[in-house]
Amino acid sequence: MPGMSRGRVEAFSDGVIAVAITLLVLDLHISPEGKGSLAHQIGSSWPTYASYLVTFFVIGVIWVNHHALFGLVARVDRLLLFYNLLLLLSVTTLPFTTSVLADYLRVGGGDGRLAVVLYGAVNELMALAFALILSHMIKADLLHEPVPRAQGRAAVRRFGLGLFVYPLVTIVGFISPPVMLVLYALTTVYYIHEQTPILGQPNPSGDSVNSPD
Amino acid sequence: MPGMSRGRVEAFSDGVIAVAITLLVLDLHISPEGKGSLAHQIGSSWPTYASYLVTFFVIGVIWVNHHALFGLVARVDRLLLFYNLLLLLSVTTLPFTTSVLADYLRVGGGDGRLAVVLYGAVNELMALAFALILSHMIKADLLHEPVPRAQGRAAVRRFGLGLFVYPLVTIVGFISPPVMLVLYALTTVYYIHEQTPILGQPNPSGDSVNSPD
Amino acid sequence: MPGMSRGRVEAFSDGVIAVAITLLVLDLHISPEGKGSLAHQIGSSWPTYASYLVTFFVIGVIWVNHHALFGLVARVDRLLLFYNLLLLLSVTTLPFTTSVLADYLRVGGGDGRLAVVLYGAVNELMALAFALILSHMIKADLLHEPVPRAQGRAAVRRFGLGLFVYPLVTIVGFISPPVMLVLYALTTVYYIHEQTPILGQPNPSGDSVNSPD
Amino acid sequence: MPGMSRGRVEAFSDGVIAVAITLLVLDLHISPEGKGSLAHQIGSSWPTYASYLVTFFVIGVIWVNHHALFGLVARVDRLLLFYNLLLLLSVTTLPFTTSVLADYLRVGGGDGRLAVVLYGAVNELMALAFALILSHMIKADLLHEPVPRAQGRAAVRRFGLGLFVYPLVTIVGFISPPVMLVLYALTTVYYIHEQTPILGQPNPSGDSVNSPD
Repeated sequence: MPGMSRGRVEAFSDGVIAVAITLLVLDLHISPEGKGSLAHQIGSSWPTYASYLVTFFVIGVIWVNHHALFGLVARVDRLLLFYNLLLLLSVTTLPFTTSVLADYLRVGGGDGRLAVVLYGAVNELMALAFALILSHMIKADLLHEPVPRAQGRAAVRRFGLGLFVYPLVTIVGFISPPVMLVLYALTTVYYIHEQTPILGQPNPSGDSVNSPD
Repeated sequence: MPGMSRGRVEAFSDGVIAVAITLLVLDLHISPEGKGSLAHQIGSSWPTYASYLVTFFVIGVIWVNHHALFGLVARVDRLLLFYNLLLLLSVTTLPFTTSVLADYLRVGGGDGRLAVVLYGAVNELMALAFALILSHMIKADLLHEPVPRAQGRAAVRRFGLGLFVYPLVTIVGFISPPVMLVLYALTTVYYIHEQTPILGQPNPSGDSVNSPD
Repeated sequence: MPGMSRGRVEAFSDGVIAVAITLLVLDLHISPEGKGSLAHQIGSSWPTYASYLVTFFVIGVIWVNHHALFGLVARVDRLLLFYNLLLLLSVTTLPFTTSVLADYLRVGGGDGRLAVVLYGAVNELMALAFALILSHMIKADLLHEPVPRAQGRAAVRRFGLGLFVYPLVTIVGFISPPVMLVLYALTTVYYIHEQTPILGQPNPSGDSVNSPD
Repeated sequence: MPGMSRGRVEAFSDGVIAVAITLLVLDLHISPEGKGSLAHQIGSSWPTYASYLVTFFVIGVIWVNHHALFGLVARVDRLLLFYNLLLLLSVTTLPFTTSVLADYLRVGGGDGRLAVVLYGAVNELMALAFALILSHMIKADLLHEPVPRAQGRAAVRRFGLGLFVYPLVTIVGFISPPVMLVLYALTTVYYIHEQTPILGQPNPSGDSVNSPD
């Protein structure tokens, strides 16, 4: 696409992710007009704080992955921009589903389960968008260096793991929401370690590589 | 303008567009204190979710077009900055008109039609600002490469299509708001495909071009 | 300051200004639960829309001036960062004083006048911060090219004009708030034209200059 | 980490810090529907304005320090990104603890003290994250130039001072909240002067150094 540079796609995505991660705090509010003492209010709304922390790191890790993926890209095309908008849609929607999750975990029942499904669905959209981005990058030859077929397919498969993980985590949430939040936190830890989207892919930007030994 | 660089205009615009697209989510709110179950609340406020999705992609496509247009620019002057502020005004106002649209589609009647007009008017301001930006870029010779007269005029005409589209879409919205939302979504698809603001314009930044064949 | 680059100061300032200009929209809200029809609600809250528009361009012009000023800078020191924080403080506070202005213009009386003073005071802080930034840039020799003494003093004097303009505009606001809003809009137009902070200062970045003839 | 560049870590952090510092203003709200005149409302909510000002400069100084620290970095690894997320978590949470502090300073008693502790705890997290970042930078050899052992340890010790300062400031807040706010403001002044995270560390970016004499 004439004039489309990777830099501005990264800058815009950084902006959206930074705003979304910071807006999460708007869901935390306590006031002297509320019911009971400050300590009581904090204690009774633990799902709000737990969801805040988990979603903060979920979005933080989305940024880390976005950063790593686009670091491999030499040029962008319009389909990549569309898949990136899908990813950003999941990011901007997370503060809403987080708020609904926190509110309805306290309610429980059918509404609690629906809130768990909504939260999982937006995470699933995120995993789907990431898989589409990586797979399109490889197929449309947008990378700095072409990737051997088998290796590319392996990368997409490994990266697309989330597509199966989030539905499972959602089912766990039907039984125990706290366990589900712990699992989301663990998924986050997994992705922080999953540092190389395409194994063996050399680093084109040079100034930021770990030494390979 | 001494010291004015294209880079900071893009960075500021990226920031405004990123904040606006993320603020849309503040219009989605459901709480256990609301009327009825979670499923009922979501169902009864479908215009809110439909407007959220449509406006998300409207703003997303504004960013794509902004990116493509400014990719052609070699230098900026103060009139360009003013037209860019007009464009950003339409972007920052969209979360408001989207919220009004979502609320009054449920009310209908004269108020519903006024909400449709407000939403259309801000989109019209956006189309106008884009047309002014492109036309000024060509006339004031701000591009990397000068454009032949006829070609420039054709580009402005093609790009300014929105000036006629939005009033028509608004009239449709008087009859059927849901059809109007679908038309807005289709306009978005059209602009995502409309990737070359000036036909035949070579890409000056080089590192991000599709091969021309 | 070791490691301090102009680029990040600009990026951070762009971010703050972009968020502040976009947050203004949060002050516009109309809902079917409000008093009267949509048209009536819009009409009865005209000060909100007028203040929104004026403040949008006030902040937009702050960005244009910030951009032009920092374009002259070769290096930053900690005092410059502190003055820049003062400037950003005025920017982040403007959405609040704008909201107070819009609400109390309808109330009028002593409260209306106090709201006018608050709005003027934050604009005065902005003008003061700009004058401090420019004067420090010249004195501490942070520019790309040293400026002759007389010329530097003339630039500070011309740029510091706002220090006298805002109190006068505030006094006008005691008599007629609408005239005051028009005057703020005109100040904005003046600063958009005031494109060269230091007359005769050559442009160091090269890629964005207007030809000098 | 392949493809991880310092630039995007800075851009994302700039975004988060810029949004957080601007969101503080959402805690300031006065309306004609409130109790008493505008002057009375402002006077009776002085803790809100004092906390707004202090936290504005607390976050401003976090940005200055972040800027100075990352200016020393040549490459990033995933642990650095994780510590940076911890730092950003403290930044995004500050608007919440600031709001709680402002509300409960007026209430006083046990709730007032708890609000003081919450505010201090988030500042402590910030100091901890900064100490982890600096210490990891030195140990993992991420700097432009390796640092002699003793010098590195001295830098971490000096930089980690906040770890002891914030608990002390919190204890002062039990006795006198206004004195505590003054102390936070003074800490800010200290850190603005603390311009060289690692003494004797040469500046690698060159274009922004003060002459060393």
